[in-house]
Amino acid sequence: MKCLVLLSGGIDSTTCLALGVKKYGPSELLAVTAYYGQKHAKELQAARNVAAYYGVAHREIDVSQAFTLSDCPLLAGRKGAIAHTSYSDQLAAKGGAGTLDTYVPFRNGLFLSFAAALAVSVHASCIYYGAHADDAAGRAYPDCTPEFEQAMATAIYEGSGKTCRLEAPLLQWNKAQVVRQGLQLQAPYHLTWSCYEGREKPCGLCGTCRDRAAAFAANGVPDPAL
Amino acid sequence: MKCLVLLSGGIDSTTCLALGVKKYGPSELLAVTAYYGQKHAKELQAARNVAAYYGVAHREIDVSQAFTLSDCPLLAGRKGAIAHTSYSDQLAAKGGAGTLDTYVPFRNGLFLSFAAALAVSVHASCIYYGAHADDAAGRAYPDCTPEFEQAMATAIYEGSGKTCRLEAPLLQWNKAQVVRQGLQLQAPYHLTWSCYEGREKPCGLCGTCRDRAAAFAANGVPDPAL
Repeated sequence: MKCLVLLSGGIDSTTCLALGVKKYGPSELLAVTAYYGQKHAKELQAARNVAAYYGVAHREIDVSQAFTLSDCPLLAGRKGAIAHTSYSDQLAAKGGAGTLDTYVPFRNGLFLSFAAALAVSVHASCIYYGAHADDAAGRAYPDCTPEFEQAMATAIYEGSGKTCRLEAPLLQWNKAQVVRQGLQLQAPYHLTWSCYEGREKPCGLCGTCRDRAAAFAANGVPDPAL
Repeated sequence: MKCLVLLSGGIDSTTCLALGVKKYGPSELLAVTAYYGQKHAKELQAARNVAAYYGVAHREIDVSQAFTLSDCPLLAGRKGAIAHTSYSDQLAAKGGAGTLDTYVPFRNGLFLSFAAALAVSVHASCIYYGAHADDAAGRAYPDCTPEFEQAMATAIYEGSGKTCRLEAPLLQWNKAQVVRQGLQLQAPYHLTWSCYEGREKPCGLCGTCRDRAAAFAANGVPDPAL
C-alpha cells in the first residue's frame, strides 16, 4: 500500500480519494472510515459506497470510546440541538471566532493518529486527508487550524520514524474549488453524505448542508445526491 | 477533573500518578489505561490496582483495532519473539541506533490522542505521561523522541483550543532517578508490572525487566514486586 486515505463519506474526503486514485491507482490505497459515536450511520454507508465505487480496500474503525465523556450534540444520545444556521452565522453569533458546539474533542487528532498507526503497519508512505482552505475559517474548530495540522504532520513524520507523511491535497482550495476539482475527476458525489442529521434526505439547514449547497451552486451544477 | 494521567501499570506511569496525586489530590485525577492488543493483561491489572490504591477514577480504553495490521511481536498472535537482551544491547546490534522490533506503530501518538479527547471532555487542563530521559536513547522508538513529543504537545494544545497541555513530569530524569523520586513518594511499586512477557512472574530477561532491575539496583533497594 502506498497511501492511506481518511474517508468520511462527504465531498471533501471523496475528492481526496479521487485524487489518490488518480495518483496511485486504487490497488495502492487503503481507505479508512471512523465511527466516533455520531447520531447516525449515513456517512459510514456513504464511505462504504464510495470505496466500493473505486474498488479501494476499506477499513472501518470505532473510536467512540474516546467521546463517551463528551456532551457534543453530534454524538448519539446527547440532548443539545445541532444548529440550523450556516457556519458563518454561527461564528458571527460568537463575535466572529470561537469553538462551535459541533467540535468533537480532539476528534481529528484521534482520526489522524489511528490513520498513522494503520499506515505505518501497511508501510504506506503517506496519509491523505480532506482539510481545505475554509476549514480554519474563524477558528471554528481548533483541530482544523494550520497550527494543529502542522503539529500533527510533524508528530506523524517523527513518530513513524520518518516513514510516513501527512498530506492535505485540498489545502489550497476553498470548498467550491474542491467541488470543481472533484467534478473534473468525476468523483462519485452522488454517493456522498454530508448532513449532520440522519434523516432519509439531507436536512438542507445544518451548517454542513448549507456549505455543500453553496459549493455546488458556485460551480453552477445541481448536487447529484439530492 | 484537573489532570488526566496515562497509566500503563509500570513504574514510570505509576511515578507519574504519584506526582499527580501529590500536586492535585486523587479526586482531581482521571487515570486512563490502554489495551492495544498486547500479548497479556498483566499490566492492565497492575494499572487497575495502582489506580485503586490511590482511589483515583480509572478508565480503560481499547485501541487494539489500530494495530490489527501490525506484525509487532508485542501483539497477541504474532510469531516474532521478544528479544531477551537489554535495550542497549539491542541498539548495539543495530549499530547504535534504529527502531527496535518492539515498536508498536505510532502507539504513543494514539494513546496521547485518546487521552486528549478524554481530557478535553472532562475539562482537564493537563495530561501527565511517563516519558523520561532514557526513552529517547538511541532513538529506539520514534514515538519517544523529543521531536515527536514536542509536536504532540503542540497538536494537543492547539487542537484542544489551548485548553489542555501535555506534560511529562519525569522528562528530566533517567529511570534510576524516576525510581528515586517514586520511592520518596512511596509509590506503590509492589503493584506494578513491567515485563513484556505474561507469565506468573516477570521473566527478568526482556529489555524492560532488565531496565527495571538496573533502576532499583542503582537505588540500592530490592524491587518490591519480585
